[in-house]
Amino acid sequence: MKFNQFAQIHVDTEQALTELQAIGLFAATATTAPLATNFAHFLRCCFPEAITETSQNEALAKLVLDEQLTVSAFLAQPTALTATQFYNVALQLLGFEVGTEFQLADPIAFMKTSHLAFNVATPLDNTTLLTDIYLLLTTHTKLGLTYLDDLANRGFFAAYTGPRPLFFNGKAQAVFATDDLIKEVVYVEAPLDTDQDGKRDLLATTILRPRVPAGLKIPALYTANPYFKGINDVAAKLHTVDQELAVKTDPVAAAKVATPPIPAPRPVNGHAEQAEQHATANQVYSLNDYMLARGFASVYAGGIGTRDSDGIRTCGSVAETVSTIAIIEWLNGKRRAFTNRTDNIEIKASWCNGNVAMTGKSYLGTLAIAAATTGVAGLKTIIAEAAISSWYDYYRDNGLVVAPIDCQGEDTDVLADLCFSRQKDAADYAKVQQVFADELQQLRVGQERQTGNYNDFWAARNYRDQAEHVKADVVLVHGLNDWNVKPRNVEKIWQALKPTGVQRKLILHQGQHIYINNMPSLDFSDMLNLWLSYELYGVANAAPDVLPNVMIQDNLQAATWRGHHDWASADRKRQLYHFTPAALTLDEPTDAAFVSFKDDNRRLFEQRGRDEVQWRDDFTKEPSVYAANQLRLKTVPLAQSLVIDGSITATLQAAVDQPAGLLSVLVVDYGQAQRLGATPDLVERHGYRLTPAGQTDDLVEFKLQPATDYKVITRGHINLQNRQSNTTNLPVVPNTFYTVNFDLQPTHFQVAAGHQLGVIVYASDMGMTLRPQTVATYQLDLNACQLDIPFTKH
Amino acid sequence: MKFNQFAQIHVDTEQALTELQAIGLFAATATTAPLATNFAHFLRCCFPEAITETSQNEALAKLVLDEQLTVSAFLAQPTALTATQFYNVALQLLGFEVGTEFQLADPIAFMKTSHLAFNVATPLDNTTLLTDIYLLLTTHTKLGLTYLDDLANRGFFAAYTGPRPLFFNGKAQAVFATDDLIKEVVYVEAPLDTDQDGKRDLLATTILRPRVPAGLKIPALYTANPYFKGINDVAAKLHTVDQELAVKTDPVAAAKVATPPIPAPRPVNGHAEQAEQHATANQVYSLNDYMLARGFASVYAGGIGTRDSDGIRTCGSVAETVSTIAIIEWLNGKRRAFTNRTDNIEIKASWCNGNVAMTGKSYLGTLAIAAATTGVAGLKTIIAEAAISSWYDYYRDNGLVVAPIDCQGEDTDVLADLCFSRQKDAADYAKVQQVFADELQQLRVGQERQTGNYNDFWAARNYRDQAEHVKADVVLVHGLNDWNVKPRNVEKIWQALKPTGVQRKLILHQGQHIYINNMPSLDFSDMLNLWLSYELYGVANAAPDVLPNVMIQDNLQAATWRGHHDWASADRKRQLYHFTPAALTLDEPTDAAFVSFKDDNRRLFEQRGRDEVQWRDDFTKEPSVYAANQLRLKTVPLAQSLVIDGSITATLQAAVDQPAGLLSVLVVDYGQAQRLGATPDLVERHGYRLTPAGQTDDLVEFKLQPATDYKVITRGHINLQNRQSNTTNLPVVPNTFYTVNFDLQPTHFQVAAGHQLGVIVYASDMGMTLRPQTVATYQLDLNACQLDIPFTKH
Repeated sequence: MKFNQFAQIHVDTEQALTELQAIGLFAATATTAPLATNFAHFLRCCFPEAITETSQNEALAKLVLDEQLTVSAFLAQPTALTATQFYNVALQLLGFEVGTEFQLADPIAFMKTSHLAFNVATPLDNTTLLTDIYLLLTTHTKLGLTYLDDLANRGFFAAYTGPRPLFFNGKAQAVFATDDLIKEVVYVEAPLDTDQDGKRDLLATTILRPRVPAGLKIPALYTANPYFKGINDVAAKLHTVDQELAVKTDPVAAAKVATPPIPAPRPVNGHAEQAEQHATANQVYSLNDYMLARGFASVYAGGIGTRDSDGIRTCGSVAETVSTIAIIEWLNGKRRAFTNRTDNIEIKASWCNGNVAMTGKSYLGTLAIAAATTGVAGLKTIIAEAAISSWYDYYRDNGLVVAPIDCQGEDTDVLADLCFSRQKDAADYAKVQQVFADELQQLRVGQERQTGNYNDFWAARNYRDQAEHVKADVVLVHGLNDWNVKPRNVEKIWQALKPTGVQRKLILHQGQHIYINNMPSLDFSDMLNLWLSYELYGVANAAPDVLPNVMIQDNLQAATWRGHHDWASADRKRQLYHFTPAALTLDEPTDAAFVSFKDDNRRLFEQRGRDEVQWRDDFTKEPSVYAANQLRLKTVPLAQSLVIDGSITATLQAAVDQPAGLLSVLVVDYGQAQRLGATPDLVERHGYRLTPAGQTDDLVEFKLQPATDYKVITRGHINLQNRQSNTTNLPVVPNTFYTVNFDLQPTHFQVAAGHQLGVIVYASDMGMTLRPQTVATYQLDLNACQLDIPFTKH
Repeated sequence: MKFNQFAQIHVDTEQALTELQAIGLFAATATTAPLATNFAHFLRCCFPEAITETSQNEALAKLVLDEQLTVSAFLAQPTALTATQFYNVALQLLGFEVGTEFQLADPIAFMKTSHLAFNVATPLDNTTLLTDIYLLLTTHTKLGLTYLDDLANRGFFAAYTGPRPLFFNGKAQAVFATDDLIKEVVYVEAPLDTDQDGKRDLLATTILRPRVPAGLKIPALYTANPYFKGINDVAAKLHTVDQELAVKTDPVAAAKVATPPIPAPRPVNGHAEQAEQHATANQVYSLNDYMLARGFASVYAGGIGTRDSDGIRTCGSVAETVSTIAIIEWLNGKRRAFTNRTDNIEIKASWCNGNVAMTGKSYLGTLAIAAATTGVAGLKTIIAEAAISSWYDYYRDNGLVVAPIDCQGEDTDVLADLCFSRQKDAADYAKVQQVFADELQQLRVGQERQTGNYNDFWAARNYRDQAEHVKADVVLVHGLNDWNVKPRNVEKIWQALKPTGVQRKLILHQGQHIYINNMPSLDFSDMLNLWLSYELYGVANAAPDVLPNVMIQDNLQAATWRGHHDWASADRKRQLYHFTPAALTLDEPTDAAFVSFKDDNRRLFEQRGRDEVQWRDDFTKEPSVYAANQLRLKTVPLAQSLVIDGSITATLQAAVDQPAGLLSVLVVDYGQAQRLGATPDLVERHGYRLTPAGQTDDLVEFKLQPATDYKVITRGHINLQNRQSNTTNLPVVPNTFYTVNFDLQPTHFQVAAGHQLGVIVYASDMGMTLRPQTVATYQLDLNACQLDIPFTKH
C-alpha cells in the first residue's frame, strides 16, 4: 500500500511546538528535559484507552525499539535514540507489524515504499523529537487515518478542555462529541410555488450538529439530496429503447408554459429558538459525519417534491436550483424557516456562522454545481462528486438518446418521478397528484426523446452556461470509468470555470460512480478537512497552494496518485491514428479502402438473454460473437507507453443504407494484464473510523485483479443526422458518405508498452442507445477515418 | 415480501391492556372514553419525532383513512371506524405505500399476502381498538422491525420513566441508552498456562454495557471471537493440495505431550469497582448491539493467544474451551478478573446477574458449542450460527483431507496461526514465539494430513462426544448451502443433543456462511429477543413453546419460511435411486453395466487458470468440458416435486487402476428456473436500525435471481482406503472393485416438478480435495450403485 498524503503540511519547529503544546503532547519546558522523558511522555499519550499509569506501562511494554531492545527497557535505561529506533516505534504505533510488514533493521525502507513521511535526523535531540512526533501525528495509520485521528478515536481528546474548534496541521480535529448531537427539522420557505397551492413551498431541512461552547458559531456542510426521503419504484415507467431511430423533422416549438406567480412570503407570527421536530436521518454521507466531530454541522434537504416538503420534482430545472439554494440562504440569514407548517413561527440558523459548503455525489453533487452557478452568498465552496454539469450530457449525446449505463429507458421524467417522494404520504400526495402529472407531461415534451436534439429544455439544464456566476471555490471528484455520469460532465465544467478565477481542484479516480472518502491510498478526508477548514473557518492553512490542482489515480499500478497542473488542457500534444484494413496506425494510408458492417446486433443480444453486461463483454473481447456488427482495428503493440489525456476526437466517413443512422466508437486497451477492479475491494468492514463516538465506514481500495485481456478506455456516439451539430438535423441519403467528427468522453489513461490500442466502430449500443430492429448496413471509407489523440507524459 | 413472524405472541385483552398502559398507549380509563379519542391518542404517539401538538397534527394530516377520508377529517368528525379503515392507517404507519403497495379498498388482502397479522372485528370498539393497536405494535414494518421498535428508534421511549428492563409481547424493549455505554476491558484469569510462562493466562475481555438504574443487574451476551483483535496473513502458510493421494500405512502414534502443570492463581492485592482501560471495540455483532439497548451487556473476548491476552492458539483444543468458559465463570462469579496485568487488583462483574448467552457465527459459534459441552454454570443458552461441532467435519471427510470451500490448504495449524494475533505486538510476540512454534508443530503432527484419518487429535476436537454434558438451551442456525462449515456439523449436534433434554431450536436458511439477523422475511431479532428474555431474564413468555422446533427457509420461493417438528429425523421415508447407463432411475437395473472415467481434471483446471469457482461451474453445467472426468446421470423430469430432508446415502461399487483412490459425489437439481441467490441482495444500505442511538445494519434479503440451469443440492467425498471407516486403512488393489457407502451432507431441498435430479460421480475435486497429478482411471459397476434419499412433504 502506498499512502498518498497530499494534505500533510510541513511546518517549522516553532509552529510544531505551538501545536503540540496545544494538545498537551510537548510542554514548552520540555525542550530542556531529558529526551527520554519527553519520549516517554509522548508514548504514554499514545494509549488513551489506558486510564492508569500501570495500564499505560503495559501497553508500552508491547513495543520494541529495535532487534535488541524493548521500549520498556530503553525507558528504564535511556541511551541515545536513533531515527531507526524512533521509526520502528512509529510504525508499530501506526499499526504496522514487525517482521511481516517491516523489518526492525530498516523501517525507513518500508516508509519509503509506503510513501509515509519521515525525518532523517539521527540521533534525535529534543528538537528533532518534537518535529518527528509532529510529523508522526499527521502521518497515516494502516487504516488510512492520521495518527492523531486514530488517537482521537481512541479517546485522546476525551479530557480536552482547550479552545474549540481545534486545528492541527491546518485541519480541524475531533474535539466535538457526536454521541449527543442536536438533531432537528425546520421548514425553509423557498421563493417558489411549484405545487401551485397559492403558498410558497416549504422545504423540510434536517440539521445534525454538535453541542458547542457558548458563543461559537459553526459552518455547515449541506447535502441537497433528492433521494433523502426515499425513492419511488419507476421500473414500469422506463421508456422503451427497442425502437427505430427517427428520421428527424424539426419539432414544433412547445407552447411556453407561463411561470406561475410567486405568492408573498408567509407572515411571521413569532420566533422560536428550538425546533419542534427531532430528526431521525438515516441517509447520511460519511464525509459529513467525519466533519461533524470536527465542528461542521450537517444539513440535509430533499428539496421540492420530496417527502415532508412542498412542491413537485422538476429534474434539473431553475426551480430546482432555487429550491436548493433556499437552504443556503436560510443558513446565511437571508431567508426564513419555520418550526412547523402551520403556525408561522420563525426559527433562525443562529448556530451557523453563515459559511456553507455543499457535498454529495451524483444528483447530490449536481445540485451543488447548480447552486454554485447562482453565485448565492454564503456558499463558500462545493465538493461535487460524480456530478452532472449539463443534463444533456447525462441523457443525450450528439443528437442521440444515450442512457447512463445500466439505466436504459431513464429520462428526466422518470427521474423526477423516482424522486417525488411526496407520493409516500397518501393524503399529501392526493393534493398534488394532478399538478405533478402535468409537470411530468411538460418534462416529456421538453426532453423530446424523438429527436434527441439539444433544445431550450436542455439549455435550461446546462449549468455550464451560468459558470460565469460561480463565486464558490470548487472541488470536483469524478471516476474516469464513470459511465453513469460520464466524464464529459466534469471536464466541461472544469474548463468552464477557468475564466472565473475561483479556486478549482480536481480529483480523478479510476472507479465508476462511487464515493472515494474511505480509501487508504488517498487522504481524501484530510484534503477536504484542510479545504473546509480554510473555506469555512478561514484557517490560514494555504489549502489552495498545498493541494495540487489536479490529482489523478494511475490506472496501471495500485495505490498510485499523482499531482498534475491541469487535465485535458487545450495545449496537449496530439497524435493522429489512421484506419487501414489491417490496423490502426500512425502511417497515413495510401490506398482507398472500404469496409462494411451490419447493425443487427439486437438480434443476437436478444438470443443471448438481453444481458447488457454480457453484451458489453461479448462485443469488446476477442474473438467477438458480434464480429459482423463492428469494425475492429488495433495498433501494433506499442513500443512505449502512451498516456492519453483529454478527449479523443473521432473522425469517420460513413454511409448507411437507411434514411437514418448512428455511429458508436469504443477505444480499447488490448493486452493481457492485471488491471484495477471496476469497484474498490473491501479492505476491512467498518475499518474506516469516522468519529470517536464510533461511526464507521468500510475501508476499501482499488486492487489489481486477475489478468484480463482488455479494458475499455473511452466511448462516444453520434446521430448521422447531427453531423453538423446537436441542434441541426441534416438528411441522411441512403448509401451516401458523410463525415462525422466528434469527441469521445475525456479520460486520463496510460496504455502500457506492449499493449495494443484498439478501436471498435459500430452502430447501435445495446446498453446505451436505442436498439433498432431494422437491419442496417454501414460502410466506412477508411482513408478518411482517424482518431486524434491528445497525450501527455507522466 | 412475506413477513414471517414466529415470535409474535398472541395475548388476551387484559394482558394487552396492561402492557399498553405500561408504555402509555392506552390508559385504563380509556376503555370508557370515545373511540376516536383513544385512536387520536394512539396516532399522536406514532410520531415521537414531533415535539409539539401542531407538529403531530401535521404528521397525522399525511395519513388517509380510506379513499374518501383523511385521518384529520375523521378525527375532526368521528364516525364508526371499520377494520378496513384501521388497517389502511396501520399499513401506512408500517411504511407501506397507498396505491403502489396496497389498495385502500382492501388493505386486508395485502396483509394476507404479506403475512402481516390482523384482527377481523369491525367496526372497532374500544376493546378491539386496543387489541388491534397491540397487534400492530408487534407487527413488522416494511424494514423488518416491529412497529414498537420503529417507534422506539424514532424516540418513543426518550421520555420513558417506567421500570427497566421493559418487556412487551414477551420481548425486551429499547429503553436503555446506547449513546453513552460503559466500555471497559478487564483481564480474566484462566486456569491455564498455555504459553508456559509460569503464570496463569490472562484473557483481555471487552465489556460494553448500558448504564442502568441502581440495583439492576443485567445478563450478558458473550461472543468468544478469536478474530476480535485482528488476524495474521497466512497465505504463505497454506498447505499445498497439488499432491498425490497417499497409500496409507498406519501412523506411528505420536508421543504424548505432557500437559504442563497449571500454576496457582495470582494473589489478590486489592479490589476495584472501575476498570483501568477503555474499550475501543470495532468488531461487534449486530444482534448484540440490538440487545444492548434492551438491557443485555455485550462481552467480547479473543481468547488465548490473541492480542492483549496471554497464551497461545491451539485450534479446537480442550485448552481453548477452558479459555472460552473462563469468561463465563467470571461473569457468573466463579473466577477472577483483574484491572491490569501487573497489580493483581481484582474486579468483579458486579453489574451482571450471572446469566450468560453465547452468540456468534463460524469459529465464534463453534466456541459457543465448545463452551456448552462443558456444562459450565451460568451459560443459560447458546445461539450457535454456522458452527463447527467436530473439527474433523470441517477439515476432513471419510479419510480424506477436504477443505472448506475457498480454503484449499487450510488446516488447524494454519487457522491457529491466523488467529495468533499476539504476533501483532513485537515485544509480546518475542516472548512466546518459540512456544507457539512448538505448538504449531504439535498441531501438524496431530492433524495428520498424510492420512486424513480420524484419530485422537480429532476426537479431542469432536464436541459432540461431550454432548451429554450440555446444560444450556441451544439455538442452532445454519445455511443449507454453507460449504465452509458444512451442514453435517449442525445436523450431528442437533441429533446428539436429543437425549440431553435441553431446549433445542434450529433455523436453516438457504444461504452460505452468513449471518441472517437483518432480513425482513424472518423476525430473527424478535425470536432471539424472546428467547434471551426467557433464558436470561426469566420472562414467562413460553419462548420454547412459541417458537417452532425447526424453521426452514424454502428454496423455491422467496421470503418463505416454515415451522417443522424436526429435521433429518431417523424416521424419514427413503427412496432408492438406481444407476443405469442412461439414467438415474427408480427402476432396479437388470443388466450388468460398467462405465469408466478418467481423473485428470487437474490438467484442464490448470489450463483454464486454476479458478475454483469457474471449475465448479464448468464441472457441473451441461455440457461440461470435464465430461471425461465424471459419470453424470439424471432422472427423467420429476412428475411431482421431491422434498429431500436429511442425508442422502451414496453407495458406489468402484475400481481404480492405482493403489489409492477417492470418490466424490455431487447431487444436482437440473432444470431452468429462477433460484434464490447464493447470498442475500441488499434491500437498503443501513436500512436495518438496531438502536435508537442510530446503530444500523444493512437490510438484506434472498431474492430470486435470473434463471439458471442447475443448482448443487449436496456433495460428499470418500477415500477408497477408508471404505470400512475413517479410522481404518484397507488396501486398494488396482482394478479391483470395492463398495463404498457414505452419507452426503444433509440438506432440506425441494426439487420442483419437471426438474431432473442429477448425480455426478468423480474423483478429485479441485476446490476441496487433494489434486493428484497422476492420471487415474475409475470404473463403476452401475448395478451396485445407488442413492438412498430421505424425503418428506411440505
